[in-house]
Amino acid sequence: MSLDEQKRSPEATPSDGETVSLLDQLRYLATEGDLVPYLLQVPPSRLAAIARDLGDEVFGDLLGTLDPADAAEILSRLAVADAADVLEAMAPDEAADVMGEIAPEAADRILIEMEPVEAAELRDLLTYPPDTAGGRMTPAFVSIAPDLRADQAVLALRRLAQEAEGVTYVYVTDPHDRLLGVLSLRNLVLSPPHRRVGDLMVTDLVTVPAMADQEEAAHLLTENNLLALPVVDDQRRLLGIITADDVADILAQEATEDITRLGASAPLEEPYLRVSPVELWRKRIVWLFVLFLAQAYTGTVMQFFEAELAEVIALSFFIPLLIGTGGNAGSQVVMTLVRAMTLGEVRFRDLPRVVTKEFATGLMLGITMAVATFIRALMLDVGVDVGMVVAAAVTAIVVWAAVVGAILPMVLRQLKVDPTVVSAPFISTLVDGTGLLIYFTIARMVLRLG
Amino acid sequence: MSLDEQKRSPEATPSDGETVSLLDQLRYLATEGDLVPYLLQVPPSRLAAIARDLGDEVFGDLLGTLDPADAAEILSRLAVADAADVLEAMAPDEAADVMGEIAPEAADRILIEMEPVEAAELRDLLTYPPDTAGGRMTPAFVSIAPDLRADQAVLALRRLAQEAEGVTYVYVTDPHDRLLGVLSLRNLVLSPPHRRVGDLMVTDLVTVPAMADQEEAAHLLTENNLLALPVVDDQRRLLGIITADDVADILAQEATEDITRLGASAPLEEPYLRVSPVELWRKRIVWLFVLFLAQAYTGTVMQFFEAELAEVIALSFFIPLLIGTGGNAGSQVVMTLVRAMTLGEVRFRDLPRVVTKEFATGLMLGITMAVATFIRALMLDVGVDVGMVVAAAVTAIVVWAAVVGAILPMVLRQLKVDPTVVSAPFISTLVDGTGLLIYFTIARMVLRLG
Repeated sequence: MSLDEQKRSPEATPSDGETVSLLDQLRYLATEGDLVPYLLQVPPSRLAAIARDLGDEVFGDLLGTLDPADAAEILSRLAVADAADVLEAMAPDEAADVMGEIAPEAADRILIEMEPVEAAELRDLLTYPPDTAGGRMTPAFVSIAPDLRADQAVLALRRLAQEAEGVTYVYVTDPHDRLLGVLSLRNLVLSPPHRRVGDLMVTDLVTVPAMADQEEAAHLLTENNLLALPVVDDQRRLLGIITADDVADILAQEATEDITRLGASAPLEEPYLRVSPVELWRKRIVWLFVLFLAQAYTGTVMQFFEAELAEVIALSFFIPLLIGTGGNAGSQVVMTLVRAMTLGEVRFRDLPRVVTKEFATGLMLGITMAVATFIRALMLDVGVDVGMVVAAAVTAIVVWAAVVGAILPMVLRQLKVDPTVVSAPFISTLVDGTGLLIYFTIARMVLRLG
Repeated sequence: MSLDEQKRSPEATPSDGETVSLLDQLRYLATEGDLVPYLLQVPPSRLAAIARDLGDEVFGDLLGTLDPADAAEILSRLAVADAADVLEAMAPDEAADVMGEIAPEAADRILIEMEPVEAAELRDLLTYPPDTAGGRMTPAFVSIAPDLRADQAVLALRRLAQEAEGVTYVYVTDPHDRLLGVLSLRNLVLSPPHRRVGDLMVTDLVTVPAMADQEEAAHLLTENNLLALPVVDDQRRLLGIITADDVADILAQEATEDITRLGASAPLEEPYLRVSPVELWRKRIVWLFVLFLAQAYTGTVMQFFEAELAEVIALSFFIPLLIGTGGNAGSQVVMTLVRAMTLGEVRFRDLPRVVTKEFATGLMLGITMAVATFIRALMLDVGVDVGMVVAAAVTAIVVWAAVVGAILPMVLRQLKVDPTVVSAPFISTLVDGTGLLIYFTIARMVLRLG
């Protein structure tokens, strides 16, 4: 935090007496992205005072809006007992995300300080990997027995009200916690008071297994326009729910991973600013090196055509332009197509349609670029012959890049390989070597070289 | 639809009597992605029969799950009066999306056939651009006066129940429709029956202006963990609500646009398979041509160093490898960083930290690649001198690509330019020309050429 931002911090206008005002100031820092640096920089005593003034509930809510790694670092600056109180007050799924970022020994010390019920809940959530439905769920749902009458159910809800803050659906379970059906709160309230819950409930309901990928849960939830999705084990026991506000996090995380992969880097596990250069190096070097190996044969191709190059040195002027344009055209195809595959818009059986479409588009793009390349060749004064060679080469290379960029991700997906491995750098690299082959072959034929 | 898929279609096992079974079959087609081709291929009489058998509600729900352009094409195969009935039964925001895809004259004919109230609602929704909060909202909310008692409000809800299917919040408005506060349905039901709604409601509520970008609405909704967000005009009149299940659509659409732009193509307006090659050409040719112009100067650079090239022809062997590796390293930085900026993880004031981080990472990557490049040079038997030149050049180029890839998107964003214009092809192209300059300058110095 720079000095001129310091004056906006709560320190500048101390107001420990006014909790509302303190909260507003912290919220303002949050919108400016200054909240985390501020909370990590104040002395522990001041941090403890802020937590105390806001109260565990409000401070917990505030931490819940932060990245779990940031929240974990802030919590670890509090006394263990205080951290335990804040975690108890947080939404269990958010608390579990934060706990997942705390070192195991420290986490155990905090869990011991927590109320046994809340600690047990957290331990359960921590057993599922964070990117599964079970890792995303919250145990803060309401379940009732099918034999209750509607009015009894409303009374039961009143007792449970505090624990189930955002309740929208009421789940109906048997004595073994197995899910029987669901009722919307609205249905329950608006139904005749004497009707049995078991007669009012909907039994044809969508569920997701705890070990399913979080992305699958997000899709089930949105495709069925639900506000919450029950998570069950293999006995159909209700373990928790995933709520609609989790979907945004899940989708954003998956899109981030896809974009990072499409840039030929492994996804980061933490927000960008928290990742060290060594870690960034680790995430990037594998692909950079694999692409280097794939590209190294361009040298072999060039060496193979050394005689042609020596005879018409002007041919070398167009190498970056031709293979660059091919890589760009391939990247356009790959980025659009891989995304369409992720969204389920394109499936393997569409391969003929996709290839036809990309071939036609590539041909039009290639011819347009041929005109531009020919003009550029005349400008460089390399002669009409070389101009015709480069114009023909750019057309062939663009079409080739488009067709390869269409086929490769679709075939890989069919082979159960994540199609995002066909990144923009990947297709560019692939087109570099093959593009040179196309170029020199055309040059040899047209210019009768060698 | 291919022949062997035909046998899975509802045609094969006619069951017009059993509506449930027909719906299940259509749902199965939907999960296989066959529903749209099927509905567009059956004779209009059969389509009308399907719509009639399912009923307007169920058929409307089914259409609501499709892409609006597909749904519009299917609806336009029905008689105008039938299409109007289905649209009336659909959720208003989904109906508006579909209407937006129908040609204006055809849409007017359908609106005339609709019930005046529903038609007016649709017309209102159609006045906002589809990517704004107003274009995304639904008017299916419940509002009550502040003077009602809690039990009266529940009675009022009972009357409104059918129209407000997924009601979670009850909004409190004054006689001019201005938003005063909000109550969760749960709060309303669980409060003492005699309390005034005006005393129970929360007045400190989050709203979004109708003309705000849909992405802003999505972020407000998720950051505040809401299930619905009220959309207001500049008089704070309640116009509609955006519900949590819309957020997934909004975020997916924004991510798709970003990914397409990062591949140096303009975003498509329809699903990929619906876009014609001419339209794809139009979306791609602008960037492809701009990048071509930017890359054309690589020819000038090469011509400028013609003497060096002629003297040591082996230098040309490494051109694709060096500029390709630079482009790959730059793409890795750009794709990771632009996404982090979109998520708000990185802001302009972080520029020094980002540049330092990327410089350090680039140096480590560059040195690693220098070792690989030197070995490759020895394998190509071009001599230790050239090997040292290419090793030094790859280090410098990778560092240069990383630093440019870090600075450019951040500066553009600060200048209010969408940072996704710095796509993977963009940074590759930029590094191609500058990379050549770096390479030949090092070669000239080390090899004492020219």
